[in-house]
Amino acid sequence: MASSTQGQVITCKAAVAWEANKPMTIEDVQVEPPQAGEVRVKILFTALCHTDHYTWSGKDPEGLFPCILGHEAAGIVESVGEGVTEVQPGDHVIPCYQAECRECKFCKSGKTNLCGKVRAATGVGVMMNDRKSRFSINGKPIYHFMGTSTFSQYTVVHDVSVAKINPQAPLDKVCLLGCGVSTGLGAVWNTAKVEAGAIVAVFGLGTVGLAVAEGAKSAGASRIIGIDIDSKKFDVAKNFGVTEFVNPKDHDKPIQQVLIDLTDGGVDYSFECIGNVSVMRAALECCHKGWGTSVIVGVAASGQEIATRPFQLVTGRVWKGTAFGGFKSRTQVPWLVEKYLNKEIKVDEYVTHSMNLSDINKAFDLLHEGGCLRCVLATDK
Amino acid sequence: MASSTQGQVITCKAAVAWEANKPMTIEDVQVEPPQAGEVRVKILFTALCHTDHYTWSGKDPEGLFPCILGHEAAGIVESVGEGVTEVQPGDHVIPCYQAECRECKFCKSGKTNLCGKVRAATGVGVMMNDRKSRFSINGKPIYHFMGTSTFSQYTVVHDVSVAKINPQAPLDKVCLLGCGVSTGLGAVWNTAKVEAGAIVAVFGLGTVGLAVAEGAKSAGASRIIGIDIDSKKFDVAKNFGVTEFVNPKDHDKPIQQVLIDLTDGGVDYSFECIGNVSVMRAALECCHKGWGTSVIVGVAASGQEIATRPFQLVTGRVWKGTAFGGFKSRTQVPWLVEKYLNKEIKVDEYVTHSMNLSDINKAFDLLHEGGCLRCVLATDK
Ligand SMILES: NC(=O)c1ccc[n+]([C@@H]2O[C@H](COP(=O)([O-])OP(=O)(O)OC[C@H]3O[C@@H](n4cnc5c(N)ncnc54)[C@H](O)[C@@H]3O)[C@@H](O)[C@H]2O)c1
Ligand SMILES: NC(=O)c1ccc[n+]([C@@H]2O[C@H](COP(=O)([O-])OP(=O)(O)OC[C@H]3O[C@@H](n4cnc5c(N)ncnc54)[C@H](O)[C@@H]3O)[C@@H](O)[C@H]2O)c1
Ligand SMILES: [Zn+2]
Ligand SMILES: [Zn+2]
Ligand SMILES: [Zn+2]
Ligand SMILES: [Zn+2]
Repeated sequence: MASSTQGQVITCKAAVAWEANKPMTIEDVQVEPPQAGEVRVKILFTALCHTDHYTWSGKDPEGLFPCILGHEAAGIVESVGEGVTEVQPGDHVIPCYQAECRECKFCKSGKTNLCGKVRAATGVGVMMNDRKSRFSINGKPIYHFMGTSTFSQYTVVHDVSVAKINPQAPLDKVCLLGCGVSTGLGAVWNTAKVEAGAIVAVFGLGTVGLAVAEGAKSAGASRIIGIDIDSKKFDVAKNFGVTEFVNPKDHDKPIQQVLIDLTDGGVDYSFECIGNVSVMRAALECCHKGWGTSVIVGVAASGQEIATRPFQLVTGRVWKGTAFGGFKSRTQVPWLVEKYLNKEIKVDEYVTHSMNLSDINKAFDLLHEGGCLRCVLATDK
Repeated sequence: MASSTQGQVITCKAAVAWEANKPMTIEDVQVEPPQAGEVRVKILFTALCHTDHYTWSGKDPEGLFPCILGHEAAGIVESVGEGVTEVQPGDHVIPCYQAECRECKFCKSGKTNLCGKVRAATGVGVMMNDRKSRFSINGKPIYHFMGTSTFSQYTVVHDVSVAKINPQAPLDKVCLLGCGVSTGLGAVWNTAKVEAGAIVAVFGLGTVGLAVAEGAKSAGASRIIGIDIDSKKFDVAKNFGVTEFVNPKDHDKPIQQVLIDLTDGGVDYSFECIGNVSVMRAALECCHKGWGTSVIVGVAASGQEIATRPFQLVTGRVWKGTAFGGFKSRTQVPWLVEKYLNKEIKVDEYVTHSMNLSDINKAFDLLHEGGCLRCVLATDK
């Protein structure tokens, strides 16, 4: 299926972040055709995630402006560059900020989902082939972001950064599998490997934390304790498997002590899904001596550090982290989509708001309101 | 074999630490008979370890004085208290500061060697039965230490804290399996589970670090990089399997960067065998992204904290620790003794000095000299 735009520059709408912390504006952007090993994707739906906001806010020292943010999306391949064999025009896809080349030291290790192939380029907002951007406005280049830049009607990604999915999947829902939901599920299944009967604590009940709860429930956890400073989160959290709730504000004791008391010595697994370094410490320290494992999922602001007494580790606790839940993106995102189609995992339930790309600044504001899990933007308006 | 001293108070020689940081003195000490669940052991040989020195120095906030230190030893059971079935007078044994009751939540978990049974008593220098000490001098009680107190010709330990070993094993050697050597081997075999081909970094080439190297060699590690600020350690370390040496003092770059450069991205496993919190950080950060695992073996001074950027964990590194190398003491110390008798593990090579109990203060001084790995004291003089 050759499209009429193949080989042409496409001019389309995109939300451009010109400067840190300044509202994005919708612009007519020129999107170049894909070069060798690249794929141009028509984005249909994109959600917002905290990492977009973090870079937009200027707190990310590696953030580059002007850029097109966005990394949790779904769309259809418009055209492919030379040598691209695994997707073709018309394929339904989810862009993957975590690439999977199946060839590099990382991919071949069998021990991690972190692929090294295109990182040197995506880390500095360009494509690997010519170390340039495919986006421009009247000749002025606009940086890519996380190798995805989904706040645009069209984007160009590396072929190792795109997962082909079942075309029956509703793109306005499965776009969430591009980041938050997959991360939470994978943190439980791949990184912690929670087993049946385990006691689990989840710090932060946003999309990522709720997906952790869902993953823990499906793994057979006996107790899933949700911790959030916003008690409004507790009602909805029940639907995701959380069995008990703790609001740190209701206690004078440190939250780690509250959890140790509640569980006769500590939890088997804990997950930090906030990005707060003091909570990361609490999440480690509420783990049971001898075996408790804590997984850091939240992303802390640059420069911040975690700390604890080494005795916490010498007495058997394990401190880990996860990126994209340890999922191999191109291989496993399609599998997650199938699980969703088979009703084995929730996705719809995380979509609390739907808007248009042109509402993007409003959608960003929503991110900080308690009632919002994920806001999905349709890019056609 | 009933001994003539059974049921009697024994008066014998012991090194008593009266106050922090004051030379120990050899005293005539009264050692009560074992109560229910207790074992009185005639100690024949005891080595010195850093934990003894740490408590003696007054830096351990939980240290209690006066006390009888010592926890790396071997001896023969003199008598047993009511209900003790697994050892009897005449058995050759190694006291185990890490108990193993096979009944508590920890022992039954199958996930840890940390036993909870007697900790509440041993942590405060007494025996569990009556919460009192079995040591006294003219009626004045002297505290136990780590549930072992081996700087004495006789000691009383809980039955869960003593491992029965092959009587053919030379006690002046296998005493080392009571702490340092076992800890290093177990850190590799049980905690890190190093696999063939792995690249390993060992920080600190004392007894514990050298045992880590030996364990890594036997696990088939392809490179074993030893790091020490004392280059004199490098010669002897070759005999324990270390293949490369790095002295941080020879480099301007942080040691983690030196190791990353040396290994094309970092090591697969690292072990901190010093007790220095900055080195613990370096040991984590020199691990390979995606899978590198760092194990804290060294014991840091009270109140000190480890720190790193959470990004180190989010990108796949794992931070762990180990106590007694994860070995189940009563079950596995006898197995380690067999391995030694079968020449599968070294022990003799760690004994650099032999002295008498009466030389204990001199032996302590030796601990801080580069040439000393372990100094073994005969208690009969
Ligand atoms: N590691 C990865 O690959 C990865 C992927 C996606 C997202 N993330 C990160 O995961 C984190 C969570 O993402 P999200 O979309 O669920 O965020 P969110 O903002 O929707 O949820 C965070 C929740 O934490 C709660 N919270 C805030 N401070 C708290 C505190 N001190 N104690 C308890 N609860 C507190 C908030 O009330 C909120 O409910 C973010 O840091 C995000 O950047 C990481
Ligand atoms: N976790 C456990 O169960 C356990 C058991 C036994 C011992 N330990 C601890 O293990 C540690 C090591 O014990 P050991 O008997 O081998 O001690 P040791 O003093 O014989 O060896 C330490 C080595 O580290 C080197 N060193 C010191 N500072 C250094 C630095 N900044 N960089 C590189 N090298 C440095 C020294 O030169 C020395 O060779 C101690 O902290 C001890 O308390 C822990
Ligand atoms: Zn995200
Ligand atoms: Zn790769
Ligand atoms: Zn020791
Ligand atoms: Zn036990």
